[in-house]
Amino acid sequence: MKDFLFGFIGKPTKATSFIILSLLLLGTLSTFAQEEAAGPTVADAIFTANNIWMLVATFLVFIMHLGFASLESGLTRAKNTTNILFKNVSIISIGLLTYAIVGFNLMYPGEFSIGQFFGFAGFGIASPEGAAGLIEYADGGYTYWTDFIFQAMFAATAATIVSGAVAERIKISSFLVFSTIFVGIVYTVAGSWKWGGGWLDAMGFYDFAGSTLVHSVGGWGALVGAIILGPRLGKYMRSGLKPIPGHSLPLAAIGMFLLWFGWYGFNGGSVLSADPELISLVFVTTSLAAAAGVMGAMMLSWIVFKKPDLSMILNGALAGLVGITAGADVMTPMSSVIIGFIAGLLVVGSVIFFDKIAKIDDPVGAISVHLVCGIWGTLAVGIFAAEFSFTTQLIGVVAYGVFTVICALILFFGIKYTMGLRVSEEEELMGLDLGEHGMMAYPDFQQIAEAGGSTMSMPSENVEY
Amino acid sequence: MKDFLFGFIGKPTKATSFIILSLLLLGTLSTFAQEEAAGPTVADAIFTANNIWMLVATFLVFIMHLGFASLESGLTRAKNTTNILFKNVSIISIGLLTYAIVGFNLMYPGEFSIGQFFGFAGFGIASPEGAAGLIEYADGGYTYWTDFIFQAMFAATAATIVSGAVAERIKISSFLVFSTIFVGIVYTVAGSWKWGGGWLDAMGFYDFAGSTLVHSVGGWGALVGAIILGPRLGKYMRSGLKPIPGHSLPLAAIGMFLLWFGWYGFNGGSVLSADPELISLVFVTTSLAAAAGVMGAMMLSWIVFKKPDLSMILNGALAGLVGITAGADVMTPMSSVIIGFIAGLLVVGSVIFFDKIAKIDDPVGAISVHLVCGIWGTLAVGIFAAEFSFTTQLIGVVAYGVFTVICALILFFGIKYTMGLRVSEEEELMGLDLGEHGMMAYPDFQQIAEAGGSTMSMPSENVEY
Amino acid sequence: MKDFLFGFIGKPTKATSFIILSLLLLGTLSTFAQEEAAGPTVADAIFTANNIWMLVATFLVFIMHLGFASLESGLTRAKNTTNILFKNVSIISIGLLTYAIVGFNLMYPGEFSIGQFFGFAGFGIASPEGAAGLIEYADGGYTYWTDFIFQAMFAATAATIVSGAVAERIKISSFLVFSTIFVGIVYTVAGSWKWGGGWLDAMGFYDFAGSTLVHSVGGWGALVGAIILGPRLGKYMRSGLKPIPGHSLPLAAIGMFLLWFGWYGFNGGSVLSADPELISLVFVTTSLAAAAGVMGAMMLSWIVFKKPDLSMILNGALAGLVGITAGADVMTPMSSVIIGFIAGLLVVGSVIFFDKIAKIDDPVGAISVHLVCGIWGTLAVGIFAAEFSFTTQLIGVVAYGVFTVICALILFFGIKYTMGLRVSEEEELMGLDLGEHGMMAYPDFQQIAEAGGSTMSMPSENVEY
Repeated sequence: MKDFLFGFIGKPTKATSFIILSLLLLGTLSTFAQEEAAGPTVADAIFTANNIWMLVATFLVFIMHLGFASLESGLTRAKNTTNILFKNVSIISIGLLTYAIVGFNLMYPGEFSIGQFFGFAGFGIASPEGAAGLIEYADGGYTYWTDFIFQAMFAATAATIVSGAVAERIKISSFLVFSTIFVGIVYTVAGSWKWGGGWLDAMGFYDFAGSTLVHSVGGWGALVGAIILGPRLGKYMRSGLKPIPGHSLPLAAIGMFLLWFGWYGFNGGSVLSADPELISLVFVTTSLAAAAGVMGAMMLSWIVFKKPDLSMILNGALAGLVGITAGADVMTPMSSVIIGFIAGLLVVGSVIFFDKIAKIDDPVGAISVHLVCGIWGTLAVGIFAAEFSFTTQLIGVVAYGVFTVICALILFFGIKYTMGLRVSEEEELMGLDLGEHGMMAYPDFQQIAEAGGSTMSMPSENVEY
Repeated sequence: MKDFLFGFIGKPTKATSFIILSLLLLGTLSTFAQEEAAGPTVADAIFTANNIWMLVATFLVFIMHLGFASLESGLTRAKNTTNILFKNVSIISIGLLTYAIVGFNLMYPGEFSIGQFFGFAGFGIASPEGAAGLIEYADGGYTYWTDFIFQAMFAATAATIVSGAVAERIKISSFLVFSTIFVGIVYTVAGSWKWGGGWLDAMGFYDFAGSTLVHSVGGWGALVGAIILGPRLGKYMRSGLKPIPGHSLPLAAIGMFLLWFGWYGFNGGSVLSADPELISLVFVTTSLAAAAGVMGAMMLSWIVFKKPDLSMILNGALAGLVGITAGADVMTPMSSVIIGFIAGLLVVGSVIFFDKIAKIDDPVGAISVHLVCGIWGTLAVGIFAAEFSFTTQLIGVVAYGVFTVICALILFFGIKYTMGLRVSEEEELMGLDLGEHGMMAYPDFQQIAEAGGSTMSMPSENVEY
Repeated sequence: MKDFLFGFIGKPTKATSFIILSLLLLGTLSTFAQEEAAGPTVADAIFTANNIWMLVATFLVFIMHLGFASLESGLTRAKNTTNILFKNVSIISIGLLTYAIVGFNLMYPGEFSIGQFFGFAGFGIASPEGAAGLIEYADGGYTYWTDFIFQAMFAATAATIVSGAVAERIKISSFLVFSTIFVGIVYTVAGSWKWGGGWLDAMGFYDFAGSTLVHSVGGWGALVGAIILGPRLGKYMRSGLKPIPGHSLPLAAIGMFLLWFGWYGFNGGSVLSADPELISLVFVTTSLAAAAGVMGAMMLSWIVFKKPDLSMILNGALAGLVGITAGADVMTPMSSVIIGFIAGLLVVGSVIFFDKIAKIDDPVGAISVHLVCGIWGTLAVGIFAAEFSFTTQLIGVVAYGVFTVICALILFFGIKYTMGLRVSEEEELMGLDLGEHGMMAYPDFQQIAEAGGSTMSMPSENVEY
């Protein structure tokens, strides 16, 4: 009855209209008299609302990919902008397609074939009900298609995080190969351990929306990539560290705001229903953690650098968001402020550590934001939410770290010794936009620069690395 | 009473409405008599959900206008940016107002006065219930106001498509006159043939969200405009074709992402309810077609140009989106991947064809994206969805082509021989920003350019066209 | 019954809530008692839908902060862009946190301790139900957390408006102190007079979504700030007024579009439920007023300046939006067109007045958009909506003006004579980006400029002010 009605609400063809109308007549007269099962039920109405919410969350997560593209290109140099945009447009597309082909069924295998570590439900996506390409109602209070597309939007995120750390020096073709495997297999198999009902889920590990499953997985990939690639030319000179500022802070700020905006879907949709209590609590904790992350980063960076640092507060907001993601549905507002504030402090310390002490060159701070704060957020669940075990949270963090690092090492070294990983020195100096794509991002301004005697698109950096 | 009714009515024709209403009245009376005025009903709840969904779709379609503005200005030169932004802000405003004054009642006339080709329900909008300016529940499971505003957001799109193809050389006042008539009358009368219940609807022609009604209508206008205006100065020289790259690829990428984002409302809202099965299927097909469009365009352009081409994959995403629009609610995921992939191939081939062979100068590729892929998407419905006839789809495509081309010819020639269509050579060289608006888009950087001896704002192109 | 209920979903006072809840309980019991009361009820479904709508509105209002950041940085000079972005990222963070700490309980005190002018319900936020940090269903048809976060997003807006008017010369630390107090205390206490159920509410003053409570409050702060700070160096020279154009019109246009986009949440959410009649009417009036604002500003500015002026139509759209905000739920479409059109005329006249006659330097036109049109919109409610008194509307406007001006004077003078308000002349010439933050917004292009002999980042303006 429910199926009949929902089909009907759609857009009936003329052909079916008469039949439907007749049925409706009958149904209305006979059913409503005793008033049961007469039309859509309360459950249908709530199902409809849940499904709306999940699709709203889906398009919000989608726009995070523009957020990543803007943030990453804003924080790097003009000569590599086309390259970065190309990567980010590609990643979302590759992510959606690989998720349709293998990812969804690796992450939610239903049954695990290798212990609770690995399962696969077959290639492609298809509604369990099958017929006519339509769907059955999934367990979560929304449709099978909604289930797929919401998760698919998440999938590409992990690879995008890596993108930022390896920016301005990785070969585009190599990165595309890495991304395809990382997003299609590594992320999804790892994800199955918790969200697919695998061994970590069985242990009681908790990661609401992916501080670990998405952000630290991406962050570990970013760390491995940045180490294997080495720093950008000109970054670490004999004379000391040379900061390489991003070419457009408005673009970076647009990126941060869009990420925060999209995070309402990332966390809000992870409730997996429109449960009023939970989704509104999640909005509050997410907002306050981001705001507190800004304040934490502002205070520490102002103290350390003696100046209010815009790039640090942008990363502070993201740090707070990553930090709250593991427990956004179980924290009080006050806990979320504390978690966000500490994340804001952590990201500043971590950026300084990787930049100055570890000398790992991460152009956008992806490792500090996603790995460090992803770990923090996951552990914070074990600290602030009494119902979860710190030890289990730690086991989860370590397990994801070990698995992802091993996979990333295999992938990056495999690519390095086959197709090569890094562009040539000449190309890096010239910029990847001309080298890889033959297309400047700002030709009117970059050509001018040359006309005016500048060397922006071919900086004669004194490379001593 | 009324509330109960509309919750589950799709979109019946006027003809059937009376019958349905009567039947429902009977059914309802018998049911609600004993529990009348008990509070909101299930139908109210579903009505509320549907209405929310349609308004969400409305604001998503709205933001597509920022997408168009960004894409078009990013793909053209800095010296014409103010002009392009001015056009795009104007178009959405003109579109909303003309749709309120005449458009809505031309597109949904209720009764047709000239066969099934033309109808008009009077000037202005007003709730059928009238009193206090408030509304009655419309047939479609949402309010009259929602019906109007969702459709109004669509209306301006067709004119915006034209804008891209005639950019960098059309007079602003002439374009505004063209847009007003194109969006107020041409688009709406054409639209009435299908969505208003006209002759093509009666024939069984199918165009879910407007591959033909919106995109190819805009695309035909773009084609006519680009031909009548002729190419930009300096584009086709005796020495051969000179590519004119866009001045800001980040702006273009922002435009593409926002269009994709908004397309979830464009297609998602065209379900005309929040039917869970349909809206979630539409999200899947729309996403996969866009992703496949990127891959198709990437592969073909990489083969042809030997380089990964960013502007091509941006257009590839849009091509996939335009392609799936006609059948987003009736395709399987696999069909949507195929349709999107072919659209991605088509757009690359088409851009090359118009640029190098036909020598029709279309600065942003609007004709290739919207006309070519709009036709492809409409025909694809006849190929991939067994319930629709390829022949009927073809008839629809041709009918819209003939009508729109004739109207566009009349409009463009009428304007050309009265107020003039194209700016002067001096103005075109100087840029329309200074010529038409007296206002540079990037004064800090463009002034510098001049200080540095550059000539960006007044390029001394060797014009040989 | 339905009307009663939908009215109820609006925002009843605490006083009426108990009665309504009791009635509802009775109604529900009597109706649903004979069905099994086991699962969710119709009221739950509508509650879920309302809550979804309010959270959608929340994220839309959030993205307005990116709109403000983009608009303000686009309309000012490149050398101050980092500073402006820093301010805008800070304001949303400070706004959310102060609103959680004191703001929410100042604005909705429940009981007033000083007449109906001031009340405070204690520090921090906590669900009335308390246990486990979760919530009870609030009176308004959505959760307590939703109530908080929607209002919190509004709070920071008022301070952001001030930001635009004092841009390019205010010290960052001083502005942050001002904002914290303005958004945490001034805005919230003023807001309590109407939205918190204070004396103006009792008088019948009407301000649906904040033409006065948000926009004119921000606008008065902007006016006072701009006067106390004085104009930017080089603006008013002995030789006459020197226009200082914004450095990026695409950024400004992105800002306007995002503000319009977010306004669907600002006004749509102010219905405080998903009432289909009201939220769809609000979408129509909001859209038409913005479009009419564009047309009004276009016509007048074209007549006055003889050129189509982009920055004026951007402000025209915002003017229309501010103008309709006070009465978006009570206007007919035609009235909203008239109100928006007049707002568009007003903003052009006002910008000219403040710039040329009053010689108050407001870099982005914030005073004209938010103060002038905020007043117009509030009075328009008394003109166009028969049920409201013009006199009462005027009293409200004046009361908010007097209160805000006094508070702003105290704040700005207090800061001026303690920490100082304005940067040094050297810093202002160099730009606040280098002076305050040590970080250029566009280093690749600004460095080039210097290489090319330009002086953008240190303009040698002939300062005669």
